[in-house]
Amino acid sequence: MGTLTELFDPDRVAVVGATPRGDAVGHAVTSNLLADFDGDTIPVNPNYDAVLDTPCVDGIDEAAADVAVVVVPPSIVLDAIEECGVAGVRNVVVITAGFGETGEDGVKREQRLADLADEYGLNLVGPNSLGIMSTPSGMNATFGPENALPGGLSFMSQSGAFVTAVLDWANDNGVGFKDVVSLGNKAVLDETDFVDYWGDDADTDVIIGYLEGIEDGREFIETARETAADTPIVAVKSGRTSAGAQAASSHTGTLAGSEKAYEAALDQAGVIRAESVDELFDAAGILGSQPLPDTDAVAIVTNAGGPGVMATDAVGDAGLELASFTSGTTDALRASMPDGANVHNPVDVIGDADVDRFREALETVLSDGNVGAALVLAAPTATIDFDDLGDAVLDVTADTDAPIAACLMGGDRTREPKRKLQTAGIPCYFDPGRGIESLATLAEYRDIRDREYAEPMSFDVDRDRAREALTSVHDRDDNCLGVEAMELLDAYGIETPAGEIVDSPVRAREIAAGIDGDVVMKIVSPDILHKSDIGGVAVGVADADVADTYEDLITRARNYQPDATVLGVQVQEMVDLDDGVETIVGMNRDPQFGPLLMFGLGGIFVEVMEDTTFRVAPVSEPEARAMTEEIRSAPLLRGARGRDPVNLDAVVETIGRLSQLVTDFPAIVELDINPLVALPDADGGANAAAVDVRLTVDPETLDSEDSDQ
Amino acid sequence: MGTLTELFDPDRVAVVGATPRGDAVGHAVTSNLLADFDGDTIPVNPNYDAVLDTPCVDGIDEAAADVAVVVVPPSIVLDAIEECGVAGVRNVVVITAGFGETGEDGVKREQRLADLADEYGLNLVGPNSLGIMSTPSGMNATFGPENALPGGLSFMSQSGAFVTAVLDWANDNGVGFKDVVSLGNKAVLDETDFVDYWGDDADTDVIIGYLEGIEDGREFIETARETAADTPIVAVKSGRTSAGAQAASSHTGTLAGSEKAYEAALDQAGVIRAESVDELFDAAGILGSQPLPDTDAVAIVTNAGGPGVMATDAVGDAGLELASFTSGTTDALRASMPDGANVHNPVDVIGDADVDRFREALETVLSDGNVGAALVLAAPTATIDFDDLGDAVLDVTADTDAPIAACLMGGDRTREPKRKLQTAGIPCYFDPGRGIESLATLAEYRDIRDREYAEPMSFDVDRDRAREALTSVHDRDDNCLGVEAMELLDAYGIETPAGEIVDSPVRAREIAAGIDGDVVMKIVSPDILHKSDIGGVAVGVADADVADTYEDLITRARNYQPDATVLGVQVQEMVDLDDGVETIVGMNRDPQFGPLLMFGLGGIFVEVMEDTTFRVAPVSEPEARAMTEEIRSAPLLRGARGRDPVNLDAVVETIGRLSQLVTDFPAIVELDINPLVALPDADGGANAAAVDVRLTVDPETLDSEDSDQ
Repeated sequence: MGTLTELFDPDRVAVVGATPRGDAVGHAVTSNLLADFDGDTIPVNPNYDAVLDTPCVDGIDEAAADVAVVVVPPSIVLDAIEECGVAGVRNVVVITAGFGETGEDGVKREQRLADLADEYGLNLVGPNSLGIMSTPSGMNATFGPENALPGGLSFMSQSGAFVTAVLDWANDNGVGFKDVVSLGNKAVLDETDFVDYWGDDADTDVIIGYLEGIEDGREFIETARETAADTPIVAVKSGRTSAGAQAASSHTGTLAGSEKAYEAALDQAGVIRAESVDELFDAAGILGSQPLPDTDAVAIVTNAGGPGVMATDAVGDAGLELASFTSGTTDALRASMPDGANVHNPVDVIGDADVDRFREALETVLSDGNVGAALVLAAPTATIDFDDLGDAVLDVTADTDAPIAACLMGGDRTREPKRKLQTAGIPCYFDPGRGIESLATLAEYRDIRDREYAEPMSFDVDRDRAREALTSVHDRDDNCLGVEAMELLDAYGIETPAGEIVDSPVRAREIAAGIDGDVVMKIVSPDILHKSDIGGVAVGVADADVADTYEDLITRARNYQPDATVLGVQVQEMVDLDDGVETIVGMNRDPQFGPLLMFGLGGIFVEVMEDTTFRVAPVSEPEARAMTEEIRSAPLLRGARGRDPVNLDAVVETIGRLSQLVTDFPAIVELDINPLVALPDADGGANAAAVDVRLTVDPETLDSEDSDQ
Repeated sequence: MGTLTELFDPDRVAVVGATPRGDAVGHAVTSNLLADFDGDTIPVNPNYDAVLDTPCVDGIDEAAADVAVVVVPPSIVLDAIEECGVAGVRNVVVITAGFGETGEDGVKREQRLADLADEYGLNLVGPNSLGIMSTPSGMNATFGPENALPGGLSFMSQSGAFVTAVLDWANDNGVGFKDVVSLGNKAVLDETDFVDYWGDDADTDVIIGYLEGIEDGREFIETARETAADTPIVAVKSGRTSAGAQAASSHTGTLAGSEKAYEAALDQAGVIRAESVDELFDAAGILGSQPLPDTDAVAIVTNAGGPGVMATDAVGDAGLELASFTSGTTDALRASMPDGANVHNPVDVIGDADVDRFREALETVLSDGNVGAALVLAAPTATIDFDDLGDAVLDVTADTDAPIAACLMGGDRTREPKRKLQTAGIPCYFDPGRGIESLATLAEYRDIRDREYAEPMSFDVDRDRAREALTSVHDRDDNCLGVEAMELLDAYGIETPAGEIVDSPVRAREIAAGIDGDVVMKIVSPDILHKSDIGGVAVGVADADVADTYEDLITRARNYQPDATVLGVQVQEMVDLDDGVETIVGMNRDPQFGPLLMFGLGGIFVEVMEDTTFRVAPVSEPEARAMTEEIRSAPLLRGARGRDPVNLDAVVETIGRLSQLVTDFPAIVELDINPLVALPDADGGANAAAVDVRLTVDPETLDSEDSDQ
């Protein structure tokens, strides 16, 4: 995008609604700008000649501003924004509240505001924003109590209070920022725009965010994915629980997407997720300063056995591993360490170690090619000065390509070395686990950076035939389609058992004759949901019995529900469930992220064990494959307990074809293939069979798609 | 026990090995005692007349000491301890290292030390201990750099370095202790002794521990359970991961029990487990000072919407719930709060709130009977002074029976109110999640306190017959028994299908004739492990085919492995697997905790999904029942997917009978009933059937049990 450069680096900032009244927001913003901003601050208010000793202009048209910060009362905000547009100001920060967050009228006002922004091509932040900051120019265009310190983190937040709280903490802890934006209601600019901009900003080392919702899910995923290849993104997404989502919704009016969707989407987007403020800044701190580890293997150097054990536990908890040293390393340690020292990982330099011994051990393990990262872990002793140890760690860091974290376990004596280390980008905590966690974040980001994103899976399909199958929904009251829509799957190349829906015993016999072996017969009726319960399903029907079974099924349906619409009887090839594994592939449409694919093993695994996995469609081949690999029951697909492994490629392909189908047709609101029977590799034969399908279609969307074509 | 009173509250403490040499441990201990101890410090060293200006005696027999702290070199430690015993000193703290932690010789020396303690009835701490502290008398009998502040926490640690680190931190954070003990190698006194003592100590509010292992598991469980009814116990148990356990073992020589056993045992013992130093002290802090909540329902009062959402998420994460207010509460809030405030939970008093409004809202929600606990959550604003807010919270706390936690989100401005609140026992953090977590700890402890412990399940059993069945292990090379040991289960009243092991076709036919319906026939041979693979199992054999099948099975076994010992063929009643649910009940013997029971659903659930649960035996009825309820697949037992529920009482009883069996016979090293088929309620018939069993027996233990009888 690039057009946000002016927003964060303007020459002239106007405050529309600047005032000398001490308790007013317009006073706070003006005063904050005047305090530190390198450029010009222009108060705009027809009622004053000057505000805070700065000449005031009557209207924005007189300000020649690059950015307008709007703080006027809600009733005149829209006029003020229009005046900005007319005056040629392209960047507007709307601090005034009282829009979408206040109910129906507010939503309408917010829509008009967005329309104006569109009309004049405005980069508009807010409304209901605390404002923005950019430290290179000292610009603090917020009404918050404090300006940010300079640094490499760019920070967006959907909560203004969160910005205030974080800055208060950050300033006291020496944590600095490049840009800060309080997103407010995100009527125009949203998280995607800032991720996009900061991704290209050389001065932004790490992007951090507090988000309660994501506006355009798909666009966010694609933008974040591209950005994360160079710039780490760490975010707290709150409203994870249903109570939390409800709280977020009542507080910002954000429509809650499902947590499953956010979880999948943020992962697909390469966003590192934090769940607390500590986690957010622990991650951001180390990502902004330390090299990425080549391997997951961590070396621990400590003077304290017990804490060394805690750190070792933390290595396992964090999904890292304890490095195995080469014999050269253990020999070198044995030579340089005293008796009683542990020369294996975790290295125990023992309680009487001085800083030199610590340093020696640290340098030795870091020179081992098996070591990807190191933790220095010290308890207070008579022989260790924490300040000196901190300096030694700093020295060693300068000579290594591996990341290092430090844990200095103590009270006030750790304060100074901790500050010094953290300023140099070396995480320093009390708790061994926290040090290890920060190293794990580096490994996580390395994996994100190493990802190779493939194009979404794409196949030759018969889209028209699929559309045709979907239009039968116009004949249904409940927008639902069942097995009569198997055509749809067939049109997208998803293998279904041979079969047809027939409306006479004769036709049933003809179809059965064309199918090898016995058949399955099912009543087809949109009004009868639980077919098995009324004896509406016959399994293993021999050709000779097909005609009678047809009559029997129809009779059962009539007896059960005389007024039921009966579309016929499905005569279907029998799929050998004994050799196969029943799986479920499903989709439901998330308000933020669109089609969310689900995969799991059929029956109890999804229903009782909740062993499922999700991805936002469209998915690439590696993404579809990962779905089949990451469920806990995956070993059953790979042939656990002496069974033949199923043909996973066929399952992966089915997921890909379904992904294409639901992406092509936004009218499909929900769809489940249940079961998709995954079969062992069969040369030439079916390797996965969609035995049944249920879907919900939105007829209006379907019609509008038709008219789009 | 009570006998540790003198250890922690002596009149006279002797330092055996006191010395004026400044870098020596004997100097540090003497100097620490002289600095703060209210009682008398007596240096013992024949080489000096005085140490640190204090008269020195030649031997412990001249010291009239209640406690002797032994710091002499390893070579003369045992003599020194013997002299203590002879002199009538009953409490000895051995700081000298070089025992069990150093290898085989050290282990022997440590055994002699334990023998001496036994001979003279010594309360012995260590060896390899940092020492002990007790703040009421100011006694600091350690060589650490700092004495503890007074407080209500009593602290034991298996790592001396951990004590040093924690004290350094605690002193700077105003956290105080009653007693502190560095456990060292625990040759005599171990965690159980201190839990027992502190449980009866009126000045100990909370017991906290850092443990790498537990010496006598069963005794610990029973003692901790009793103690935890009045005094909360919070512990870090490190060495949770296999790498961590290995590190712990190499550092202290502690034999690692399995993490599953520790997890089950600490839970059964009512110990609250912490995984980091923060968690340990967050939990200890609130448990020592705040009332327990009546319900899990939390009210949140905040001036910041976003952080309110984070706190709401945390409520769900912590297993608590968001309180639903009565209409009286929402009405009262509506009357007292401005427009725009959220009068539902989380209560948003909005950004312009002052301290009075916060206080008003807090008092209102606390007067609601639905509210069990409250979180006050504030971001910095122009209208909130954190010091005043802290004082308001303190005031409100004085008038309520509900616990309160505070989150003041900011930097330096939070320091003073935070210290003030924490000193008064009100947790105060930056992160909303951490505040909620501390409230969750209170709820966890309330649940522990409310537990009603039942006696272990006990049934009339035929112990002699069981012993008889076990002795057949003497005929086995591998100490394993299989289906031929079904007698054992029968002797303990565990229902098994009708059947017998026979050694002729004629006998096979006779047995089959006495069984209703078809039978299952299996080859019985300790040498053939995978019977099914060689066709050694025949299912659904009709009476007429029994004799032929017998011959066939024997032939197959002979062909497969001519030299195999064949004990015969088992002829067994067929259990209807279609109606039942296959479960597994197993046991293996943990080095620390003894018999560890396992329960899970058969096949994939245990093998692939690892859906299992554990308890240390013997178990009570509620414990056995909880095992059947807490596995993820439990719904399958309760009749998921349209099946009949199984008779859970029968499963619970089987677990109880197995618990009794493995408790009665320590010789049983491992035992699996797989499958135990859980069946729907059958009036008079079997409700659970143990179809197969495998066990490993230690013949030596069995023999020694025999000789004990």
